[in-house]
Amino acid sequence: MTEVQILTESQLRTLVPLDLAAIDCVEDAFRALAGGKVVMPPILRLDIAEANGEVDVKTAYVPGLASFAIKVSPGFFDNPKIGLPSTNGLMVVLSARTGLLEALLLDNGYLTDVRTAAAGAVAARHLARKDATTAAIIGAGMQARLQLEALLAVRKITSVRIWARDRAKAEDFARHATQKLKLAALVSGSAEGAVRGADIIVTTTPSTAPLVLSEWLTPGQHLTAMGSDAEHKNEIDPALVARAELYVADSLAQTRRLGELHHAIAAGLVAPEQSFVELGAIVAGTVPGRQTETDITFADLTGTGVQDTAIATLARQRAEAAGAGTRIST
Amino acid sequence: MTEVQILTESQLRTLVPLDLAAIDCVEDAFRALAGGKVVMPPILRLDIAEANGEVDVKTAYVPGLASFAIKVSPGFFDNPKIGLPSTNGLMVVLSARTGLLEALLLDNGYLTDVRTAAAGAVAARHLARKDATTAAIIGAGMQARLQLEALLAVRKITSVRIWARDRAKAEDFARHATQKLKLAALVSGSAEGAVRGADIIVTTTPSTAPLVLSEWLTPGQHLTAMGSDAEHKNEIDPALVARAELYVADSLAQTRRLGELHHAIAAGLVAPEQSFVELGAIVAGTVPGRQTETDITFADLTGTGVQDTAIATLARQRAEAAGAGTRIST
Repeated sequence: MTEVQILTESQLRTLVPLDLAAIDCVEDAFRALAGGKVVMPPILRLDIAEANGEVDVKTAYVPGLASFAIKVSPGFFDNPKIGLPSTNGLMVVLSARTGLLEALLLDNGYLTDVRTAAAGAVAARHLARKDATTAAIIGAGMQARLQLEALLAVRKITSVRIWARDRAKAEDFARHATQKLKLAALVSGSAEGAVRGADIIVTTTPSTAPLVLSEWLTPGQHLTAMGSDAEHKNEIDPALVARAELYVADSLAQTRRLGELHHAIAAGLVAPEQSFVELGAIVAGTVPGRQTETDITFADLTGTGVQDTAIATLARQRAEAAGAGTRIST
Repeated sequence: MTEVQILTESQLRTLVPLDLAAIDCVEDAFRALAGGKVVMPPILRLDIAEANGEVDVKTAYVPGLASFAIKVSPGFFDNPKIGLPSTNGLMVVLSARTGLLEALLLDNGYLTDVRTAAAGAVAARHLARKDATTAAIIGAGMQARLQLEALLAVRKITSVRIWARDRAKAEDFARHATQKLKLAALVSGSAEGAVRGADIIVTTTPSTAPLVLSEWLTPGQHLTAMGSDAEHKNEIDPALVARAELYVADSLAQTRRLGELHHAIAAGLVAPEQSFVELGAIVAGTVPGRQTETDITFADLTGTGVQDTAIATLARQRAEAAGAGTRIST
């Protein structure tokens, strides 16, 4: 007879806000990944073409953490037509010592939003110039907002330029940035207008064709692309992989297959076997991050199972401490 | 706001016994698999060597079923030393139309036991001689008992011979078969003694070296091997794959990689690309099963995601009808 702890989205939103602790927790996961002892199998992916749907299952074992998460992320892209969100899902938390089910985090994708934004903060912390003040955000969805908040936690951002295909959503986001985040926010007329002159650029779209051209980038800028988590997605001109002084993958195995790097390889701009730095190695200090004020740095984030295991472990610890959730005996 | 239905092992044991309905449900899943429209990605597997543990995640989308299951199966083989079961796990049930979480079946592996035994019944139904009366069971664990019960549902079995490494467990099982199942049951002194003269042989062990030699088999016998679900497991002499008149895989993609077939390929007895019949094609009637009373038939069962989706869908339907389980709003 064991007990399973069940936590809902609203409980998890209270327990795990996007804050420095969440960012540090995800940073620790990248450090562990660089240690080489993490076990992170390839993503399991199920496509249901009839329903325009897909499910990704990610997991990773991180030595030192008592639990590990198996994350189920469905994306059903016709859902909005019937008033439902496209993405949702849950995390299943198991003991790393016994495999016993410990917790079910019914987060509807919330923890993924947090750990994804936290990875953006980790990339900016190690790659963006320390004096960065101006951000450009491409996209105006939930993740665009979270990426901006994540940047605020690691750099003294004072202004933001926003570009999105849907101008009304971009304007909403700009209002939010002005009123809630107290930033000088403006909606750019073009992606190029947003990118030129920004210190940090973050792309957060499901685009399948480049939105940011390599030639727009200028010395000293940092760009994080977090939209591409599948073969067909592509936000950045593949030429930037070769042009940037420092291209950094969250997981090279994944970015070669799913990330922006995949398109640079497909375009013949980069050799398939060419090695690149991983974010974890920079976090761990075994490889330098940004080296000069004029480097162009480029972080390619596809999302990793270690981030899921890290954020799920944090959620579970906080739930235990708070006595939150429902317990069911199995 | 959606509702998730949560069912525990004891509720699921009541709702989904191993009966003809469960067997038919799994048979339907194999028929669907043969239809070619099932989507069944490769198994995700995570190994945690420090804890002598592993987790398999299986899933399949079966057209026509409103839901699909993602099954999480941990196996932590040091657990018995601390009084815990080696295997447990749960099934996550999602809508095949929207991807929304519908149910969590906290079955600790029970539904896997049922769907695995049900596949044994499906194999025997289509491959064993209709006049089969004598079974041999190799192994004396939970699955050995269930495989015997499954045979009783499809053939008029009157006697059983049992062999297991642990003689005391074999004797326990024989007592159970005599008293509860009203069979003439005896414990054999050797695997060979159990196999010779039986009409149906089922192997149910985690063995990593052959327990049953090809030369022991005689015309008319049917053998189901259900123990091998990983590369290193091996219950049957690889020579039997070539010798049997009919070798049948549950999923050829899986048996080539994980099943008894894998060892026959590794031994050079079968070409890697050689094609074999799948159980679903026989169930669907597109390929004949047993053709003569003297054929030796051999079913190689590794366990498939379609079985999980099928049994989970049955469980959910029955739970809905019975109003069983706990509901949590997410």
